[in-house]
Formats: sequence, structure tokens, C-alpha cells
Amino acid sequence: MKTRITELLGIKHPIIQGGMMWVGTAEMAAAVSNAGGLGIITALTQPTPERLKEEIEKCRTLTDKPFGVNITVLPSITPPPYAEYLQAAIDAGVRIFETAGRSPEPFMPLFKAVGAKVIHKCTSVRHALKAESIGCDAVSVDGFECAGHPGEDDVTNLVLLPAAFQKLKIPMVASGGIGTGSQLAACLALGAEGINMGTRFVATKEAPVHQNMKDAMVAANETQTELIFRTMNNTARVFKNKIAEEVVALEAKPGTEFKDIQPLVAGKRGKERCIEAGDLDDGIWAAGMVVGLINDVPSCEDLLNNMVKEAEDIIKNRLMGIIG
Amino acid sequence: MKTRITELLGIKHPIIQGGMMWVGTAEMAAAVSNAGGLGIITALTQPTPERLKEEIEKCRTLTDKPFGVNITVLPSITPPPYAEYLQAAIDAGVRIFETAGRSPEPFMPLFKAVGAKVIHKCTSVRHALKAESIGCDAVSVDGFECAGHPGEDDVTNLVLLPAAFQKLKIPMVASGGIGTGSQLAACLALGAEGINMGTRFVATKEAPVHQNMKDAMVAANETQTELIFRTMNNTARVFKNKIAEEVVALEAKPGTEFKDIQPLVAGKRGKERCIEAGDLDDGIWAAGMVVGLINDVPSCEDLLNNMVKEAEDIIKNRLMGIIG
Repeated sequence: MKTRITELLGIKHPIIQGGMMWVGTAEMAAAVSNAGGLGIITALTQPTPERLKEEIEKCRTLTDKPFGVNITVLPSITPPPYAEYLQAAIDAGVRIFETAGRSPEPFMPLFKAVGAKVIHKCTSVRHALKAESIGCDAVSVDGFECAGHPGEDDVTNLVLLPAAFQKLKIPMVASGGIGTGSQLAACLALGAEGINMGTRFVATKEAPVHQNMKDAMVAANETQTELIFRTMNNTARVFKNKIAEEVVALEAKPGTEFKDIQPLVAGKRGKERCIEAGDLDDGIWAAGMVVGLINDVPSCEDLLNNMVKEAEDIIKNRLMGIIG
Repeated sequence: MKTRITELLGIKHPIIQGGMMWVGTAEMAAAVSNAGGLGIITALTQPTPERLKEEIEKCRTLTDKPFGVNITVLPSITPPPYAEYLQAAIDAGVRIFETAGRSPEPFMPLFKAVGAKVIHKCTSVRHALKAESIGCDAVSVDGFECAGHPGEDDVTNLVLLPAAFQKLKIPMVASGGIGTGSQLAACLALGAEGINMGTRFVATKEAPVHQNMKDAMVAANETQTELIFRTMNNTARVFKNKIAEEVVALEAKPGTEFKDIQPLVAGKRGKERCIEAGDLDDGIWAAGMVVGLINDVPSCEDLLNNMVKEAEDIIKNRLMGIIG
């Protein structure tokens, strides 16, 4: 497949691995890039800018294909040193960035000075247009289906993608809810020139998560995600487990404050308990609606090859057959 | 376009007008059928079974193309005489039915006795499989995007359609959020063999609603719908107007009961104030997320021809171009 996204990024398949906290390691990113997609190292998964630089160097020993770095800027009382992380990535030679959360405007001079490509992930048409106006090279448009933070508008990709496409000039990547070749074909029809997947990549052989998590995603159906933090205007889609249901129940109680919920979702509990130890009910972990479409745990290479083949078959046979 | 749905229903375009309370009149249904889609008369918009029979006879004077009748079975303290409505439609010669709400199982013998085709609209995979198991000829799978009742699972069509397609044998119609040719192509890629549109048909020349309503839909963006009755497990997606926002605010107050909300949404207020008088803030009216994609008020014929042409162009040029 050839689109403005494959050309912009120098990749074979128009498929990007979205930034994922704790999961976006050198090994994960290299596996996706070696499979012909764009792997992404998540900057803030590394404890310091120096460690990010080492992770990038490690990735370069694992693949000679392009990969990128994600930086997600969220509201925080003690924000991490974003600019230092970015500088470390630039110093390590990274020239593709996925930004998410707040507008990347403060960092654009840093990116532009070295000719880096910037894909900003956003959950609304107005934010996509803002990203275009400040010089982003592409946008990832993230629908209500997505894992993590879908925003507060609750517009789904079937509507959000064509709405954004009607107004954007830069290329658009579809993000949220995607994990099959039929969805790849559908998103291309809706105006996207590539797709971004997070959850689907967690259920691959190479993903650095406990096998229990991969098995749970295979077993889950499409109703097994939950929205938490809605009452705090910081909605997040997570796997519907015991703790997610407790959080939702607490939020529904009048007078609940974040300090009442915090023990349940604190710090690295999700990482240490769910991702590493495989006790899936003992923390919060992000998962998109696409869990309902995941039926296997393939290698990244098999996943991408099969998805592209399925999409091509659908276009050549099913769709061309229907129009006769 | 040729699919199992166009063959089943004997129609030119794989596009069905979904049942719409107050809007699904003989004139509306005939306009859609004359345009090559399947028009649908809404049974319960007529005050009596006898009047439904007259409406069907009127429709037959306006078109010689196939059309159907919708019957929606909702929980009610004093339910309308569903079986009598259906018998009236059968007596008037109708052989295509769209059922919605509760399972059509009690009516299947009535339908099967006359060889009528039944398309059941449902909002989950499990209900679609149930419809298949009781002998429905097709299902309309209705995503979170839809106007009216999306159910309580909140699964979007980008995920719900492929999830249903993985398990269904009977043909599937995509419903909810749809109003463009790009979406038609996308839904066909996701496994649908036709689409169902409600809201998009309200913004046509022939729709029997006040011009203010059509203009409001053209002006609206994709964020201008609202979910009400969530707290009552009877969620409905409506246009985000003053009353919808009042209802949502009331529902958020602890202790609110339906009797507190009822004056705002009572009886035919939406029909008389919004649909007929054009005072769009003085009642509740259903609208799907697709309001964000509606930019004109065409005739049904232009709408369907343009959508099919756009979908065909996307398949032949955009998608075939991408795969090379």
C-alpha cells in the first residue's frame, strides 16, 4: 500500500504503533518496524531522558527501519522534563515524533530545527485543525473507541474520521478501535491514509506484557472496556476488571473525590501488578474496544502482513464485486 | 451495487430508510423507494391499525417500488396493539418489515405465514445472533452513533459491525451515524451488505419536518447530540438543545425520578413543537451523530445517487489506487 503516510515516514505498511505507557519499549518498537510498520518508543516510560537515549540506541541495534518516539503531555502537578526528553531523542537521532495530550506548539521549533516529522494525536476536529495550523506533518485522529484518553466529546471514528477529512489538508491517520484488515480498508475509505494501533499490538508475541494479559484480550468481547475518570473530565478507557468497576462505582457516589479513588489507581500499580505479574484484577490497564476483535496472539510480522492482505482482498474482491 | 440485501428486498441501492417516529410517513417512504432505496412507513406514527392501512395504501399510489413497515416494540405501561398493526400491514399487502426494540419472536409466525421478509434492528452481537436464530432474514446492526436508542453497551460501528460479521450468517445492514458515500464504502468493507439511515433522511427535501429542523442539522457539528435517559437504562440520543441539556442536568441530580423529567419530554411535545412548529428548543427530538456530516438538504434521489457514486469512486479510484 502506498499513501502520503507511507511516503512521509518511509514505511512499507501504513500502520503505526501508537505510544503506550510501559509497553512502548525498544523491543516492541523494533518488532513493529521490522514488520514494515512504524514502531514507537514511549518517552515517559523511561525514568530519565538519559535512559530514553539508551532505549533509542538499543532500538537501533534491533532494527534498521524507521521508528519514532511518543511524547504525551498531560496535566500534572509535577510535570516531567518534556523538553529534555525530546532533546535526548533528537540527540539520539530520532526524526519522527508522535505527540499527544496537549498541543505540541511549544516544541515545534525544536522539531523543525532538525527537520523532524510530527504526527499529533487528537480526539476532535478542532484540535486536528489546530495541529495542522502549527505545522504538524500529519494527525492521528483518535475516536471514542480508543484505549486511554478519548477526550470528552464521545465522537466515534465512523463519524469523526470523515468529519476531520472534510476539513484537513495534511494526511490523517485513523486511531482507536482498529485491529483487522477490514477496518484498515474501512478507515482508508473514510479518508485516512494510515492507521494507528495500540491495544492490538499488546496482543502480539513481542509485546512486553504478561501472557495473562494477552490471553484476557483474546477472551474479551467488545463490551469489556470501561470508561473511568469521566467525573473528573479526564476520561480513560480501560479493561473492565474488578478495579475498573470499583472506580466507576465510587465515581457514581455523590461527593467522591480523586483522593478516594487514588489508592485504587495509584502510581505504577497497573504496571507492576497487571502488566508484569499478570494479576489482571489488581490494577488499572488501558484497553480499547478492539479487544472484542482480537482472536489470536500473532507475531507483529504476521499481524501486519495478514491485515494488509485482508484489506487488499476486501478492496479487490468484496468491494469491486459489489460495484460490479 | 449488488448485495444480498439488494437482492432480498428487490431494490437498486443497498440503502434503507430506518423507522422514524413521526417522520416515517407515506410521502417519506415513497420518496426513498422512488430514489432506489427502501422506504419505511413507521407503524406507530399512525394512531390506529386502520390508519396504518390507509397510509400504506397512500404510499402505493406514490410509488410502484418496494417499501416496508417498521414496528418498534418498547417497554410500555399501556402497550399499543402491536399484532393488530402488523395484521393491518399484512392485509394491506406489505411483505417487508423492520422490527426494532424487543425481539420479534412473538410475531415471526405472522410474518412467516405470508412469506414476509424481516429485518430486525439491534444494538449488540448477542441480539443479532438471536434474531438470526429465530428466522430473521437480515439484521440491522445499530451502533452507538445512532439516533434514538443505542442500547447501553456503547459499542461503536467501527467495532460492532466487524464483531457481528465474524459470527453472522444472514446479511447485515449497518445502521447508526451514516450519511456519506465514504461511510457506505466503509460499512461494506466492514462486512455490511447495506446501510440504514434515519437522521440523514430527515435533512432531505421530502422529509415531513419543519425547515428549521433541516437547517439546524446542516449547521450542527458532530458534537451536537446528547444522550438522555441514561440513568433509566433507556438511553436515547437526541439533538443537543436546551431541553436535552436540562434533562441531562436533572438526571445528574441525585434523587431525580422520571416524573421530574416527564414534563420536559412529555407525549407529543417534540412532534408538535419541534417537528411541526420548528421551535427546536421546545422539545426533544432524536438525532444521530451524523448531524456533523450533513451539509445540504438534497432530494432523496440526489442523496442516494450521490452517495452511491461517491462510494463507487472511492472504491475504484482511492482504494484501488492505494493498493496499486
